[in-house]
Amino acid sequence: MMNYFTEDKSVETVNARMGGPVSPRIAEVMASLVHHLHAFAKDIQLTQSEWEATIGFLTRTGQICSGERQEFILLSDVLGLSMLVDAIGNRRPAGATENTVFGPFHVEDAPIRAMGDNISLDGKGESCLFEGKVIDLHGNPVENACVDVWSDNADGFYDVQQPGVQPKWNNRGRFFTCADGAYAFRGIKPISYPIPDDGPVGQLLALLGRHPYRPAHMHFLITAPGFQRVVTHTFVGDDTYLESDAVFGVKKTLIAPFERLSGAETLWRSPFDFVLTPV
Amino acid sequence: MMNYFTEDKSVETVNARMGGPVSPRIAEVMASLVHHLHAFAKDIQLTQSEWEATIGFLTRTGQICSGERQEFILLSDVLGLSMLVDAIGNRRPAGATENTVFGPFHVEDAPIRAMGDNISLDGKGESCLFEGKVIDLHGNPVENACVDVWSDNADGFYDVQQPGVQPKWNNRGRFFTCADGAYAFRGIKPISYPIPDDGPVGQLLALLGRHPYRPAHMHFLITAPGFQRVVTHTFVGDDTYLESDAVFGVKKTLIAPFERLSGAETLWRSPFDFVLTPV
Repeated sequence: MMNYFTEDKSVETVNARMGGPVSPRIAEVMASLVHHLHAFAKDIQLTQSEWEATIGFLTRTGQICSGERQEFILLSDVLGLSMLVDAIGNRRPAGATENTVFGPFHVEDAPIRAMGDNISLDGKGESCLFEGKVIDLHGNPVENACVDVWSDNADGFYDVQQPGVQPKWNNRGRFFTCADGAYAFRGIKPISYPIPDDGPVGQLLALLGRHPYRPAHMHFLITAPGFQRVVTHTFVGDDTYLESDAVFGVKKTLIAPFERLSGAETLWRSPFDFVLTPV
Repeated sequence: MMNYFTEDKSVETVNARMGGPVSPRIAEVMASLVHHLHAFAKDIQLTQSEWEATIGFLTRTGQICSGERQEFILLSDVLGLSMLVDAIGNRRPAGATENTVFGPFHVEDAPIRAMGDNISLDGKGESCLFEGKVIDLHGNPVENACVDVWSDNADGFYDVQQPGVQPKWNNRGRFFTCADGAYAFRGIKPISYPIPDDGPVGQLLALLGRHPYRPAHMHFLITAPGFQRVVTHTFVGDDTYLESDAVFGVKKTLIAPFERLSGAETLWRSPFDFVLTPV
């Protein structure tokens, strides 16, 4: 009697129910989802009260979402799912710059600036020169690559989190490489900051004995004709949270030097080369 | 470098992050959740755009929830998870009446009625006599068992779905057994009805080629001192949707006879005995 539910045959019963003209991909995804969801419930012998608590958690997670807040993405982030999906979709040869999470704070069409310009517009923080090359897997410079960068300010907030407080486009800019593939801009040495932890995901982190902090990082989105898009960060190597990023974004190859300079105006220099993979 | 995320070691990296004073049960549940969530993403090689679609689906599911609607419970129902949790928590010896899903339409403290009373107050539908015994595993009658019953009306709606349209307590009542363990009440032969399908879960069912209907059933909640609580339905055996209940609630042992009577006033008779398991 395959059509009636039993504990033993729960997965088969549910998946046998799919009807005729179902997309093969949807059928594959949903059959796997049911398989793993039921295996989870069976492995831990999920109780009725735990199920009720889970329903409540998911409901609160949905209801705190708004145009400015996406709590389900935060949930995916802290469970490592966002990084896993990024890894699955962006496997690259050895030596190529690795991806990491995109994050919610990128803004399209940031101002195009001249090489060497300062993206920090609020006068806060310790100034830092970011420079290096965009090259291919053989070390050849990549011309006309767009280096789109963004970071938090010295208070740990992105400009879009503080409209009216920070200048528009503070700590953002786009830079286009010339024939030598070089890029250079001034910003600030980024600082670590917590992900929003006043909602269900923050409560979950607390239950798990985890802090909500991300280690300090500069965001890079690098695009160039003929090459795969790179969505990544460079991380400040001595950050307290480097080995405990709340969203698991750190990769060893993305930890950048931050060298203290003796010059008066620019306090730090962070050299980093980006190696692009052909499409 | 176990602290940094890699595709291969994604589960270990995330689970190693749990902190000191975590409840052992929460640690067990969350470690299993991360294990199965990542296995799911890897098995199907979840893409970025599928992940984005899933975030959107969960968000819409949370945002349609209200005091009168619980879309995450519906989602759990149509994925068979609700029945699985019920099965895990209510394993019983052979011969004992099986549980099925509670459903969202039970109301506490329904009127206590005399044996044989009619619970159908709106004059609609085909009248039906429900009768039988509440017994233990050895066939002995159970005295003072509370038989709490509820069903939809002839239009396919529970009274709480149509306040002001149906009489209060329409098709609901509680009956207490005497020394012979017998129960009897009049109601209507229930009819099949769709679960709410104008939201994200309805869209999911459509993608899966599934209909939203539940086969006709009478709800029973039976409690008696010294016995396990039974939450179950009896199903009308010739229902179109008996083998395709949208929430997988049907069990073979819960299909009841509905016999056509020749008498003028009561058109049907549905005999069913409930066998209770000791606590």
